[in-house]
Amino acid sequence: MHRHIYATFARDTIPGGRAVVGPGDDCAVVRSLASDGPEILVTVDQVIEGRHFTGPLRSGHNGPGTTIDLVARKLIARSVSDIAAMAGTPTWAVATGALPAGFNQAMATELFAAMARRARHWGCPLVGGDIATYCRTDTPLTLTATVAGIPHPRRAAVLRSGARIGDNVYVTGKIGNSFASGRHLTFEPRVIEARWLADVLGDSLHAMIDVSDGLGMDAGRVALASGAAIALDAAAIPLHEIAQSWQTAIADGEDYELVFTCDAAAQVPPHCPHTGTAITRIGTVVRITDTSPAGSVVVRDQDTTGAPTVYNVADAGWDHGRSDRVR
Amino acid sequence: MHRHIYATFARDTIPGGRAVVGPGDDCAVVRSLASDGPEILVTVDQVIEGRHFTGPLRSGHNGPGTTIDLVARKLIARSVSDIAAMAGTPTWAVATGALPAGFNQAMATELFAAMARRARHWGCPLVGGDIATYCRTDTPLTLTATVAGIPHPRRAAVLRSGARIGDNVYVTGKIGNSFASGRHLTFEPRVIEARWLADVLGDSLHAMIDVSDGLGMDAGRVALASGAAIALDAAAIPLHEIAQSWQTAIADGEDYELVFTCDAAAQVPPHCPHTGTAITRIGTVVRITDTSPAGSVVVRDQDTTGAPTVYNVADAGWDHGRSDRVR
Repeated sequence: MHRHIYATFARDTIPGGRAVVGPGDDCAVVRSLASDGPEILVTVDQVIEGRHFTGPLRSGHNGPGTTIDLVARKLIARSVSDIAAMAGTPTWAVATGALPAGFNQAMATELFAAMARRARHWGCPLVGGDIATYCRTDTPLTLTATVAGIPHPRRAAVLRSGARIGDNVYVTGKIGNSFASGRHLTFEPRVIEARWLADVLGDSLHAMIDVSDGLGMDAGRVALASGAAIALDAAAIPLHEIAQSWQTAIADGEDYELVFTCDAAAQVPPHCPHTGTAITRIGTVVRITDTSPAGSVVVRDQDTTGAPTVYNVADAGWDHGRSDRVR
Repeated sequence: MHRHIYATFARDTIPGGRAVVGPGDDCAVVRSLASDGPEILVTVDQVIEGRHFTGPLRSGHNGPGTTIDLVARKLIARSVSDIAAMAGTPTWAVATGALPAGFNQAMATELFAAMARRARHWGCPLVGGDIATYCRTDTPLTLTATVAGIPHPRRAAVLRSGARIGDNVYVTGKIGNSFASGRHLTFEPRVIEARWLADVLGDSLHAMIDVSDGLGMDAGRVALASGAAIALDAAAIPLHEIAQSWQTAIADGEDYELVFTCDAAAQVPPHCPHTGTAITRIGTVVRITDTSPAGSVVVRDQDTTGAPTVYNVADAGWDHGRSDRVR
């Protein structure tokens, strides 16, 4: 919804020399010191009660439902996933919390301790923060995390815009039904997988994104940024057991799996050896046409008679800025 | 109010090696790359409707009252002031906005364009951000800005903890009545003054903070971090014309002036030559005693008979985490 706003950032900042990659990718890439200095990846995300989790929060971190620990985990993990999507390594974090009036002090302490613990777990210790209190008791808890990282030591940050015609398209893990299953609170950001992919594929790894809004919409972002289209094979899309169909799974969002494209000649192992996460080829980067402009994502499936059918799914996903599902 | 929470961050992060200065100062100081890499300053602040400004916002940036431009300005300026308080130079920023449902699209665009413009003005272009929408229309607009900077080129970041017994205590500009006058929306962060102070004073500049919560409370933070007390001279405190008395002025907060301590032998010019901002000596760093423990700030004044009176003012200020003034 706010794409045009993000676009104004980019025009403002790219000429400054210090921003190598401005808004519109998973992270910004900045040089803090000088135009030839080291690059830093930076991303910021919000987690809002009623939008990204269902309140009220409860103490502890065991059992079903939404706990303080799981919300803190999701806050940090979302930003860490953005660093992973550039094949970077998280290095530090700062966070804010805006708490409803009367928010229990012990729970506030537990919340920020959980953020600090989760941030340290993923290698980006919480070095600062700001806590404010709303005037009213019924204002939704609003959290933000800014996470910085460093690029892969032997190659540049993996952008959305690097996909080339003929590239194979892959996804890590499985997708679908993240909200209903609760996986949106417990997913593991694919930092290890991303680093390993950059290790083994090097510069053959052309483009990457994490699936936050839905495989359809996020693959569309890679296609759009790369001036290409993407064709997916319905039968190849790896679905979680409880996902109903590829049609719902690619629009569910919050999978936080990685979608990447790489040179068709590259050898991509079927699993990450460090974590066992499956790596599945799901499609190809294709040339744009009159009926399939830049940013298109088509899925090739068979109808009930076995005849081939093509769906355009680049708008299939969950826009966190909107109040309902985009379907 | 949340000091104990910030303290948990510090314990978590300092051992990591990458955080040189953790939470509890104006900025964190981090090394992103390696333990011997370049230092980065980082700070994050929130601006919340009803807490840091009075809604509703209106478009445009002229005339009285709270405009979108002034709120964007305040958001960026607060974090830039934290960078100034370390004698640093701002280099980049990321921001978030959580907007009430139905927030006017044109106003959202204006808000983020204003943030980008203000950030660029202070040298820290907005390289990324995140925009979300609340489910309800009556939720307060909630903004955050993370600003990074670099330390002064010839000395380390100026911390709160460096004050030494016998140091003189100075303040830039004048204090008092920032809310009532509207100055809390239009203040100029003291980046130029801070850099110049580090230029001319070098390592004689021992400690610094920006006055966000009140001169009393913020001087108390320098004293506490330095294991000392501070004695101020009531007659020396430079007040804005409309400030009622030193007693109210030191508790008003949101002055965003710098309070610093330096070696008693240092020559401190009376004005910053680049901006004309006055530099006024207001007191001395003193040894702690049984009645004046670390963190104490006393003000020496005369009562109506001319007899000396001493006030302890280390709690005089505005705690943004609380729902009313702390007096």
